[in-house]
Amino acid sequence: MVKAISFALLSLATAVSAVAALDPAGQFKRLGACPTLGCVFPPDNAEFLAGSNFDVRVEVHAEDDAKPNTKYSLTIEKLKGSQKSNKHGKAKAVDFSKWTKVKASAQESWDFSYTKDASAYWKYLDGDKNARTSVHVASTAWRKVHISEPGTYKVVLKYNDGKKTEAIWTVNPVQKRKAKNVILFIGDGMTSAMITAARLISKPHTSGKYTKHMQMDQFPVLGHVMTHSLDSLITDSANSASAYNTGHKSSAGALGVYPDSSASPFDDPKQELLAELLRRRSKKNGGAGGVGIVTTAEVQDATPAAVYAHTRNRDEKATIVNQMIRGPNPVVADVILGGGGKYFHAKTGGKSLNGTDYYAAYSKERGYKVVNDRSSLLKYKGKDPLLGIFHAGNMDVWLDRNVYKANIKGATDPTGTGKTALDQPNLDEMVLKGLEVLDKRHRKEGWFLMAEAASVDKMMHPLDYDRALADLLELDSTIGKTKEWLKRNKLDKDTLILVTADHAHSFDVYGSVDTQYFNSFSDSEELEKKNSIGTYENSGWPSYVDSNGDGFPDKWDVRYTLAAGTAAFPTHREDFQVSINGTRVPAVATTTSHHHWTIYDANPDFDVHGINKPATMSRNESVGVHSLQDVPVFASGPGSNLFAGIQDNTEIFHKIAEVLGLGEQK
Amino acid sequence: MVKAISFALLSLATAVSAVAALDPAGQFKRLGACPTLGCVFPPDNAEFLAGSNFDVRVEVHAEDDAKPNTKYSLTIEKLKGSQKSNKHGKAKAVDFSKWTKVKASAQESWDFSYTKDASAYWKYLDGDKNARTSVHVASTAWRKVHISEPGTYKVVLKYNDGKKTEAIWTVNPVQKRKAKNVILFIGDGMTSAMITAARLISKPHTSGKYTKHMQMDQFPVLGHVMTHSLDSLITDSANSASAYNTGHKSSAGALGVYPDSSASPFDDPKQELLAELLRRRSKKNGGAGGVGIVTTAEVQDATPAAVYAHTRNRDEKATIVNQMIRGPNPVVADVILGGGGKYFHAKTGGKSLNGTDYYAAYSKERGYKVVNDRSSLLKYKGKDPLLGIFHAGNMDVWLDRNVYKANIKGATDPTGTGKTALDQPNLDEMVLKGLEVLDKRHRKEGWFLMAEAASVDKMMHPLDYDRALADLLELDSTIGKTKEWLKRNKLDKDTLILVTADHAHSFDVYGSVDTQYFNSFSDSEELEKKNSIGTYENSGWPSYVDSNGDGFPDKWDVRYTLAAGTAAFPTHREDFQVSINGTRVPAVATTTSHHHWTIYDANPDFDVHGINKPATMSRNESVGVHSLQDVPVFASGPGSNLFAGIQDNTEIFHKIAEVLGLGEQK
Repeated sequence: MVKAISFALLSLATAVSAVAALDPAGQFKRLGACPTLGCVFPPDNAEFLAGSNFDVRVEVHAEDDAKPNTKYSLTIEKLKGSQKSNKHGKAKAVDFSKWTKVKASAQESWDFSYTKDASAYWKYLDGDKNARTSVHVASTAWRKVHISEPGTYKVVLKYNDGKKTEAIWTVNPVQKRKAKNVILFIGDGMTSAMITAARLISKPHTSGKYTKHMQMDQFPVLGHVMTHSLDSLITDSANSASAYNTGHKSSAGALGVYPDSSASPFDDPKQELLAELLRRRSKKNGGAGGVGIVTTAEVQDATPAAVYAHTRNRDEKATIVNQMIRGPNPVVADVILGGGGKYFHAKTGGKSLNGTDYYAAYSKERGYKVVNDRSSLLKYKGKDPLLGIFHAGNMDVWLDRNVYKANIKGATDPTGTGKTALDQPNLDEMVLKGLEVLDKRHRKEGWFLMAEAASVDKMMHPLDYDRALADLLELDSTIGKTKEWLKRNKLDKDTLILVTADHAHSFDVYGSVDTQYFNSFSDSEELEKKNSIGTYENSGWPSYVDSNGDGFPDKWDVRYTLAAGTAAFPTHREDFQVSINGTRVPAVATTTSHHHWTIYDANPDFDVHGINKPATMSRNESVGVHSLQDVPVFASGPGSNLFAGIQDNTEIFHKIAEVLGLGEQK
Repeated sequence: MVKAISFALLSLATAVSAVAALDPAGQFKRLGACPTLGCVFPPDNAEFLAGSNFDVRVEVHAEDDAKPNTKYSLTIEKLKGSQKSNKHGKAKAVDFSKWTKVKASAQESWDFSYTKDASAYWKYLDGDKNARTSVHVASTAWRKVHISEPGTYKVVLKYNDGKKTEAIWTVNPVQKRKAKNVILFIGDGMTSAMITAARLISKPHTSGKYTKHMQMDQFPVLGHVMTHSLDSLITDSANSASAYNTGHKSSAGALGVYPDSSASPFDDPKQELLAELLRRRSKKNGGAGGVGIVTTAEVQDATPAAVYAHTRNRDEKATIVNQMIRGPNPVVADVILGGGGKYFHAKTGGKSLNGTDYYAAYSKERGYKVVNDRSSLLKYKGKDPLLGIFHAGNMDVWLDRNVYKANIKGATDPTGTGKTALDQPNLDEMVLKGLEVLDKRHRKEGWFLMAEAASVDKMMHPLDYDRALADLLELDSTIGKTKEWLKRNKLDKDTLILVTADHAHSFDVYGSVDTQYFNSFSDSEELEKKNSIGTYENSGWPSYVDSNGDGFPDKWDVRYTLAAGTAAFPTHREDFQVSINGTRVPAVATTTSHHHWTIYDANPDFDVHGINKPATMSRNESVGVHSLQDVPVFASGPGSNLFAGIQDNTEIFHKIAEVLGLGEQK
């Protein structure tokens, strides 16, 4: 539920900043949440954990031939009446450097350009260089600021001789620690519709009612999470994961920073990460100390990287590997398990930073035990921090690892041998090993584990629903095994478990398909093929059965499948049948056009006998895209009640921080 | 959360009935949840409120030339160990009539036919009369059975010389009453994705975070509801609303009954309704007494009719009007407000049962005050039961009633004058008047009010997202006004408020559309038109603004709209712009085919300049269809905690019955 206190503060914020607010409508932005020519980051409506560190940047913009006015000032004042204590004084705006005791950086300047709307954007892609608007910038930054006193603050940028940009910031009071450990499971891109579909294909039911349920179904607390970006209605995995790890919204592609307009992907104003706070607090007061990261994606991918990295560009994966152990302010997680081997080495297929052998660096500089296959992972019983990298890129998905094994191929070995990574662990094996190591290293102080089922999203993008749902079921099974492990190790009462997603896909099921009937018609008989789709009472039941009780259907190539789809797709064909020979590739690039940008058309090699589905978005998109709907958060354990009802994704950070007692208040 | 106790009982049920369970996969069913030739209704896995009344029917089937064996028997036994008390004895199967003290009906027999799969179904539609399989039936019914003793029961039908169909029934123990009143708001077809979209177009946000929220967002408890039918993965509004009102699953189109295979829509085995229980209990022990029904649909439509009607066929609307006041076992609700006037009279456009004037009948036989327009509704201050019918059919939607008023036309007067119903109330006005009347009549005993925003669903079907979201916003605004009314009348602490849906549509938003750019291209430039759809960071923000704070956008025909869609649609065109001249009609019947069934194609009169979207389901479908995903339930007030987490739609009934203390246990 949205907190009542937030409402009061936000109403005040809205009233105060109404003057500066401009209509943010429109698809293209000059820069983030900055509709005027004067930008303040963190922007209006930002919320902070008391005592956490953050950078501040102001930018003054001038478009086209204008020059930016380099005279500007930033002040801060604590607003009266918003908190009982008001030590800093009497609602008087104070110079920002003076108030924070942080010196401003030297003024910087740079140029950048952007397109103002769709018309300009596509003209530019078609070769019209004049379609972009140039912007000239003057900017100042303050690094490592913090505010320890809860309350509401007004920050004002005065620029261009009388213009103002106001930002209201809220600093939350510190709460009593509620749990020793927190596990954050993220089903990347997972929605309630996918959980419903996964339940249907894996759980037995009698007379329309389930006789077994998903693990998630058994969580006592359910909430929904709102996922907008700082500056757009649809988020990507980087900025949504960043919200969970920082309590701040950001823009697409950004991790642990508010993106500025400068060219460097590493100078953007940073926010302190949950894991950084954990490390810092644990040193001071014996608070929660351990950090674990498990993913089926590359460990440098958006969701895991959001736990430990700061960059405006999630694609800076080689540098992200370096940041983990060398910082600035390195997290040096106790457990790092997943894919992404190619960014660790410079051998065959390697892309490591400056050709460094990061396996060696992690081991030598930080004492990591390094493992590169399932067998070594399971064997490890030590107490050293553990780096397990099992694939050159993203790990193979459950359906290929366990059913269609012939699809495990290619030079995917994580160490650059050019061989295939045949010995990859399942998600549950990685999570249980992660828990063992965290328990050994930080049983006393507690720990935070982020575990991601990354390929729910990675398989939803190419509309490979079977692979996505199988990975969702693997996540669900992992949650069950995690609960058993916690109970066995007497940690269940000390550990908050959260299961959530970072964003949605517009997936849903609208009936069933009689694939035998579908396949009985020729490609030209599309009208008849579509009659194989049963809706309402004629949806009946699909043929999936889990007779061995492992939580997955015994067979995936069954007669009666799900009539599933999304609202957002590239031009493709659909046969409603599992893709046995590998991940579906719905669309491929074509060249037949007067346009200079790539146009995607239905892949001639997939769903060959399927029905035609022309794109519902730009033909420049090759796969399905993220959608808007709130995502679920399931909670159990101490502090779980905080997550009931509707909440913003930034609130997840603040609630975890509250549960782990990470704030520091004066 | 799924109750732990249910698990235990259900596991037992599964084990016991495993012998009888057949693979229910497939689209076409001979009859409901009856995969064998011997059927028992209520079927395996049914759950009962202690002391509630229900009918039982068994059917023995024989296909094609076979004759049904008319020798069969039904027994019941209480299973040992499932409950502490076991008065009825020693796990011994007893003749059903003997045990229940209810006499079996005389054996009946009839024939019916069905199609076995898609192949047979479409052959039949194309004129092949032999494509249907004939079935011969022998059947017996037991009417008005009840079981007062909580526990688990095994009911066994022995038929065909040694065959068995077993059904495990669970009778829930009675709980202490928790609230005086319950309000059940139903946003028909409403999903979390729609709430997310409605929030986006109506609530202000700063830096990606809302500064005002939906009323639903502020509910402390959130749950999800599983909506499968008895016999298919996708439900319709009748059987899902029936689950909320009876605690039993059913088949598409059924209200308050388990459908049998006989021709009559009125002889199917009934379940006692929540409203009937309320009436019965209130007479006996001063329990909750009042019943109110408010809808923007016809009051005979599936969701409202489920509160008071029993029929296998939701289309029997004239009889449904009669059932309300003449029964059997008439509910005679204190408040009935909505549309559906044509079933009340025999004048112009009238379709009332036997030409009866039901306005007069309601008034004379049951003392109703009858009103037929908004002004009379608002004026009414009396204590008599209130029948308010404001439209011949479904009421007009919010967007037409309040913005595009020229669309309010036709002979829609509810009394058959042939004029247009120009003076229709808004949903909030109906709900508040309903609350007034219920409070006057039943403040002491308490009451149950079902209020439906019906046209969320009715506008989602024709893919008219603007009209659907506007009606969702009207529901949300009504919830806010209801909370204020309860507080003002000091009933907020006594009243449980639930907000839920009955099923989903696969709607979601995946970006924004620059309609100015979209409209700048000709119809043949579909490739370019699609570039107006911005995704991720280029989704930006749509142009909807609510500057007067009434909870609705000021303008609907804005430049930047939502890129919204569904997964299940007929062939149609899409221009992503509000339909100003009336409800969208996406597809129309065509005649150009060798098939004998109707084929729908894109409507040439709607979204004329839109992009082409070929059907993702049978061309026989003219509008979008329901989808699978769990629907949300928001709860606040006494007993609200019961609704947290995941639950079956039948559990909603049992929880409301628990909250109102409607069980009767021995």
